[in-house]
Amino acid sequence: MIDLRPVGYIVGLLVAVLGGTMLVPFAVDFFYGNPDTGNFALSAMITIVAGSLMALATANASLRTLNIQQTFLLTTLSWLVLPVFGALPFWLGEPGASYTDAFFEAMSGLTTTGSTVFTQLETLPEGTLLWRGLMQWFGGVGIIVVAMAFMPTLKVGGMQIFRSEGFDTIGKVLPRAAEIATSISIIYLMITAACAVSYAAVGMDFFDAIVHSLTTVATGGFANYDDSFAGFSDATEYVATVFMVLASLPFIRYVQMLNGSGKPLFKDSQVWAFFGFWAFLVLSMAAYRYFNAPIAAEQTFRQSLFNVTSILTGTGYASTDYNLWGGFPVTMFFLMGLVGGCAGSTCCSIKIFRFQLLVAAVRSQIQKIHTPSGVFTPRYQGRRVGEDVMSSVTAFFVAFMLSLALLAIALGLLGLDAMTAISGAATALANIGPGLGDQIGPSGNFESLPDAAKWVLSAAMLIGRLELLAVYVLFTTAFWRS
Amino acid sequence: MIDLRPVGYIVGLLVAVLGGTMLVPFAVDFFYGNPDTGNFALSAMITIVAGSLMALATANASLRTLNIQQTFLLTTLSWLVLPVFGALPFWLGEPGASYTDAFFEAMSGLTTTGSTVFTQLETLPEGTLLWRGLMQWFGGVGIIVVAMAFMPTLKVGGMQIFRSEGFDTIGKVLPRAAEIATSISIIYLMITAACAVSYAAVGMDFFDAIVHSLTTVATGGFANYDDSFAGFSDATEYVATVFMVLASLPFIRYVQMLNGSGKPLFKDSQVWAFFGFWAFLVLSMAAYRYFNAPIAAEQTFRQSLFNVTSILTGTGYASTDYNLWGGFPVTMFFLMGLVGGCAGSTCCSIKIFRFQLLVAAVRSQIQKIHTPSGVFTPRYQGRRVGEDVMSSVTAFFVAFMLSLALLAIALGLLGLDAMTAISGAATALANIGPGLGDQIGPSGNFESLPDAAKWVLSAAMLIGRLELLAVYVLFTTAFWRS
Repeated sequence: MIDLRPVGYIVGLLVAVLGGTMLVPFAVDFFYGNPDTGNFALSAMITIVAGSLMALATANASLRTLNIQQTFLLTTLSWLVLPVFGALPFWLGEPGASYTDAFFEAMSGLTTTGSTVFTQLETLPEGTLLWRGLMQWFGGVGIIVVAMAFMPTLKVGGMQIFRSEGFDTIGKVLPRAAEIATSISIIYLMITAACAVSYAAVGMDFFDAIVHSLTTVATGGFANYDDSFAGFSDATEYVATVFMVLASLPFIRYVQMLNGSGKPLFKDSQVWAFFGFWAFLVLSMAAYRYFNAPIAAEQTFRQSLFNVTSILTGTGYASTDYNLWGGFPVTMFFLMGLVGGCAGSTCCSIKIFRFQLLVAAVRSQIQKIHTPSGVFTPRYQGRRVGEDVMSSVTAFFVAFMLSLALLAIALGLLGLDAMTAISGAATALANIGPGLGDQIGPSGNFESLPDAAKWVLSAAMLIGRLELLAVYVLFTTAFWRS
Repeated sequence: MIDLRPVGYIVGLLVAVLGGTMLVPFAVDFFYGNPDTGNFALSAMITIVAGSLMALATANASLRTLNIQQTFLLTTLSWLVLPVFGALPFWLGEPGASYTDAFFEAMSGLTTTGSTVFTQLETLPEGTLLWRGLMQWFGGVGIIVVAMAFMPTLKVGGMQIFRSEGFDTIGKVLPRAAEIATSISIIYLMITAACAVSYAAVGMDFFDAIVHSLTTVATGGFANYDDSFAGFSDATEYVATVFMVLASLPFIRYVQMLNGSGKPLFKDSQVWAFFGFWAFLVLSMAAYRYFNAPIAAEQTFRQSLFNVTSILTGTGYASTDYNLWGGFPVTMFFLMGLVGGCAGSTCCSIKIFRFQLLVAAVRSQIQKIHTPSGVFTPRYQGRRVGEDVMSSVTAFFVAFMLSLALLAIALGLLGLDAMTAISGAATALANIGPGLGDQIGPSGNFESLPDAAKWVLSAAMLIGRLELLAVYVLFTTAFWRS
C-alpha cells in the first residue's frame, strides 16, 4: 500500500497557499471598489481551511523520501485538486458561472491552456480577471518545477534525457524540487516583471499589463478581452511575441546564464530546433499571406508573427481570426499546435525535443533497412540516444495520438461536429487554447459546448499538461499494489 | 553502384503483361459494340512495345540474386511505372481525361485507393469501367505478394514479425515471390469468383458483378456508378461486407487452410483484433444512429455495417452520404480509416497489428515508469517482441503521422480548405478512397481539385501503399552509394 500521507500533506499545503493568494484579487477588487469582493474572501476562507485540514490530518508524514508512486500521485492530485478550489471564486462570485464552467476555467488556467468559457470579459471585475491570470502564472511555474524536478526521475515521455542537466541531486526529490523551484521562480518573476513593464511601455494600462504579463510568461493565453489581443497597439504584438518566445525556452538555461554561463543556452539543440522551426513557420505564413491577402507588408508580417508564435508556443492569444485565412494557414495552425516549445519551459504539447528524437529514429530506421548489417543509433546533441529514452519518447507520441483520437470520438459522441471535436481534443490535450471552426476557433468561445464536453476537455487538459503517462500510470492495478 | 538491369527487366515484363491485359477491356468494348475500342488497342500496343523494349534492353541481367537495394527499387518502380502506362486508356480513349486525371485514376486503381476523378461513370463504356476494376484487382494481389515476399525481408515497418510465416525460403527473393504469388493468386481468384457469383445472386447484372467483385476483393472501391453502392439492393450491402472482410484477412491463412489447416487463421491475433475492433465500430455506429436517426432498425444496422466496413478496410464504397450523420460518425469515419485491416491482405493504412504492437509498447512503458527496476517487454501472440520490430513499427507510425502532416500542409498550400486537405492527405496515404467534406467526401469527387493537388495525392497513394519507408529509403544518398 502507498502511504498517502506525504501526498495529502503537500497537496494540503498547496491548497492552503492557493487560498492565501485569493486574497490578492480580493484586495484588488476592494481597491477598484468592485462590489463583489466578499466572494473572494469566502473562497479564500474555504480554501485555506480545507487545505489546512488536509495538511494537518496528514502532518505525521515523513517527507524525507517521496517514492515514485507518491511522486506520481502528488503531481496528478495537485493539478486535480487545485482547480477544484481555484474554481470557487468563479462559482461564488463573478461571473456567477455554473460549477462546470468554473472548474473548466480553473483547469484551463492551471494547465496554462487558455480556453475560456467566459464571455464579455470586459465587464468582469478586475479581481476575477486577475485570478484567471494568477492561476495561469502559478500553473506555468509549477509545471517547470515538475518538469525539471520530477519528470526526469519519473522517466516520463523521455524526459530522463534531461536528467543530468543543471540539478544533480537525484534521489532526494523534495530538496531538489525546492532548490529548482527557488531559482526558477526568481527568473520567472524577473521575466514577468520585464514583460509587464514592456506592455505598459507600448500602451497597455497598468492592470492589463499585469494580467497579460502573467498569462504571456505562462504561455497561457487568458486575455482580458473577448477579442484577445485585437484591440491592442501593433507594438504590443511584437512585445508579446518576444516574451512568448522567451517563455518557450528551457528556464534552466536562464538559471545557468544568471550563474555566469550563457553557453548552455546557445548550445542547447532543442533551442536551435525551436528557433529554426519558428522562423520557418513565421516566414512561410507571412509569404503565403503576402501573396494572398490585400494588406500591407508590415501587417502581414506582424499578424503572422504574433499568431504563429501564439499557437506554436501554446499560448493561444489571437490578434485576428486566422480561421478565415484559408486552407494552408488553418492546416498549419492546427498542426503547429501539436509541436510546442522546449522541455523545461511553460510550453505544453509534444515538444520540439521529441520531434527531434522521433525524426532521428525514423532516419536511423531508414538507414537500417537499406543496410541491415549496420548499427544505426539515433543521436541527440551529438550523443547516442539510449533505447530506454527512445522507447519512452515513442510511447509518449503513440499515447498522445491515441488519446487525441479517443478524445475526439468522445467529443463527437457528445454532439460536437467533426472539426470542433478533433481540434477541440487537440487544443485541450496540447494545452493551446483556441480550436478550429466557428464554435471554438480564435473568435469563438467554449461556453456553448455541452457540460459533458467541458468535463472531457478538462480531463484532456490535465492529462496533456502532465505528459499523459504520468496520469495513465495511476489507472493500472500494479501501481496500487506496489 | 546498383545494377539496375534486373529491376528494369522485371518492370519491363510487368509493363508488357499490363499491356496484354488491356486486350481484355478491348475485347469487352468490342463485344458491347462500343465505338471507342481502338484506343485500348493503341494503349495495349504502346504498353507492350515499351515493356518489351525495357525487358530486352536489360535481358542480360542475373535474376538469381536480387539484393536489398534492387528489391526496394523494384517495388517502388513497379507501382510508379505501371500507372504511367495504365493511364493511357483513360487519356487516349474514354473519358478523354487529361493525363493528370488519367494518371491519378490509374494510381488510385493500382494502389487500391479508389478515389476517382471521373464523373458520370454510368456513361463510360464497359471497357473503361472494367479497366478501372482490373487495375485495382492487380494492385490488390500485387501488394499481397510484395507484403509477404518482400516486406519481411526488407524489414519495413515491422513486417519482419511475419518473416517466419508460411513461406520460409528466405534469401531467395524471387523464387519465394513466385511461390507466394502462385498460391495467393489461386485463392484470390477463387474469392473473386465467389464474390461475383454472390453479387449476381443478389441482383447485380453480370457486368456490374464482375467489376465490383474485382474492386471488392482488392478493397479498392472503384464503383461503376457516381453514387457508388447507393443504387444496389439491400442484400448487396451484406454481400459486399462479407467479401470486404474476407479481403482484409491475411491471405496466407487461406493458403494454409487450403493445405488442410484452419488453425493458423483462428489463432492469428491480428485476425481477432480486427474482428473485435470491427464489431465494436459497427455496433457503436449502429447504436448511435439508432438513437439519432429516424430510420428503421435494419436500415440503421445495414448502413452502419456496410459503410464502416468499407472505410475500415480502406475499400471506399459508400451506400449513403455518411458525412451528414453528425460529429461522432464523421470523426469515427476519419479515424477508422487510419486503422485498416490485417497485414498480408489487400488492406492498406497503418494496419491492425501495428496498433496491437503500439498499444503493447505504451502499456509496457507505463509499467516501466512505475517499476523502473522491472523489465517489461511488449508481447504479440504471447511472444516477446524484439526491440528491432518495435522500433521499426514505431518509426513507421511516426513516419506516417509526419507524412500526413506534410501532405496536409502541401494540399493546403495548393488551395484546399483545412478539412479537405487533412482528410485528403489521410485518404490518399491510407489508400481509402473518399475524404471528408463536400468536395472529396463520399458524395463528392476528386475532379474539382487543382492538378498539382492530384499529383501530390498520387504520390501519397504510392508512398502509403508501399509502407512509406520502402519509398523514403530511395531518397537517401547512402542507398545509392552502397
